[in-house]
Amino acid sequence: MDVKVIELKESILEDNNADADKLREELKNKKLFCINVMSSPGSGKTTTILRTIDALKDEFKFGVMEADIDAAVDAETVLNAGIPAVQLHTGGMCHLDAQMTRQGLAEMKEDFDCIILENVGNLVCPAEFDTGCTKNVVIYSIPEGDDKPLKYPLMFEKADVVLINKIDAWPVFDFNLDEAKKHLYLRNPDVAVFPISSKTGEGYEDWINYLRDMINADIRG
Amino acid sequence: MDVKVIELKESILEDNNADADKLREELKNKKLFCINVMSSPGSGKTTTILRTIDALKDEFKFGVMEADIDAAVDAETVLNAGIPAVQLHTGGMCHLDAQMTRQGLAEMKEDFDCIILENVGNLVCPAEFDTGCTKNVVIYSIPEGDDKPLKYPLMFEKADVVLINKIDAWPVFDFNLDEAKKHLYLRNPDVAVFPISSKTGEGYEDWINYLRDMINADIRG
Repeated sequence: MDVKVIELKESILEDNNADADKLREELKNKKLFCINVMSSPGSGKTTTILRTIDALKDEFKFGVMEADIDAAVDAETVLNAGIPAVQLHTGGMCHLDAQMTRQGLAEMKEDFDCIILENVGNLVCPAEFDTGCTKNVVIYSIPEGDDKPLKYPLMFEKADVVLINKIDAWPVFDFNLDEAKKHLYLRNPDVAVFPISSKTGEGYEDWINYLRDMINADIRG
Repeated sequence: MDVKVIELKESILEDNNADADKLREELKNKKLFCINVMSSPGSGKTTTILRTIDALKDEFKFGVMEADIDAAVDAETVLNAGIPAVQLHTGGMCHLDAQMTRQGLAEMKEDFDCIILENVGNLVCPAEFDTGCTKNVVIYSIPEGDDKPLKYPLMFEKADVVLINKIDAWPVFDFNLDEAKKHLYLRNPDVAVFPISSKTGEGYEDWINYLRDMINADIRG
């Protein structure tokens, strides 16, 4: 399938935070809910996005923006699942800011209820730049270990939701969920945490109910 | 155990590449082999470093520098295994450069043969900054998927060695080793690739023999 690849231009705005707040306001006025998905490389962002959309596709119209330094494999995967998607290339940059997010949104022409932005796989830099999206979802997988919130504090402070993915692989890894949650709440007492498997669907019911309520409160509230 | 934590200062050098070449030359003259270990968060850097040192501890004197944005859990783990270690804090920065590596090396007072630098867990930024270490080892784990060399090209171009870790978890993940190698050699035809499990020790014999030869060629050659 032919993927539309957008080469993002580096931003010139000095005040990204102000621009991000402005974008969030514009999205709210347009009744468009935008989710910024962040994680390490290989935590299961694309698989999680696909299963999440599948669960809610009869209730909301979804689109996906895949950001990567190179390649278009993720946008291809999403398009092949029948979901509108574009591939954003960051020109080597390790994150997206609000102006780059705007460049992607300009390519999403349909009347969407929810756009999911898959940020560059990186637990450091994307947390430092507000994309202007409505909410931040951080995916963090069992094989990565329960100490990650200690080492990448800002990422977990910026999260509205943390999905602990790959719980199907739990039997082969030493991962203490209570420790992981303790570390998470230390960084961010208000974060919503859902252990899930995007491979088997385990734990999805609670996450999907939470997401549905969050979208409805924003675009229909 | 009491961990020495060093708060790194941001560099002011304009030409990091020249400084890194100079540091590499100084290390060579001192017969000190320095390995820069890079990977995603949670790929098993610390476990791999411990098992690698254990296999070669009777032949070389090892020390470890653990770099993180926050926390000291990795340096604690290494110290508890009886290996000299310091914790470097990057002050929020997503990478180390040669000047930051020098600040760490200044704290390693013993007469080491080999210092292992565990870089910040990140497949993007650390590849952009030459640390001045003798060799770059990239760890890349089975749960991350076989497409990572396509998405993070510079990291795999800069690697002298790629360790494909967590092969013990292979049965529960879809990972095609031939595809991963094809993507790797596309980026970097000269890279040495070793599939390993740092949990069980599988695949270590080849990796350890390769590393032994590399260190000996450098410090005794």
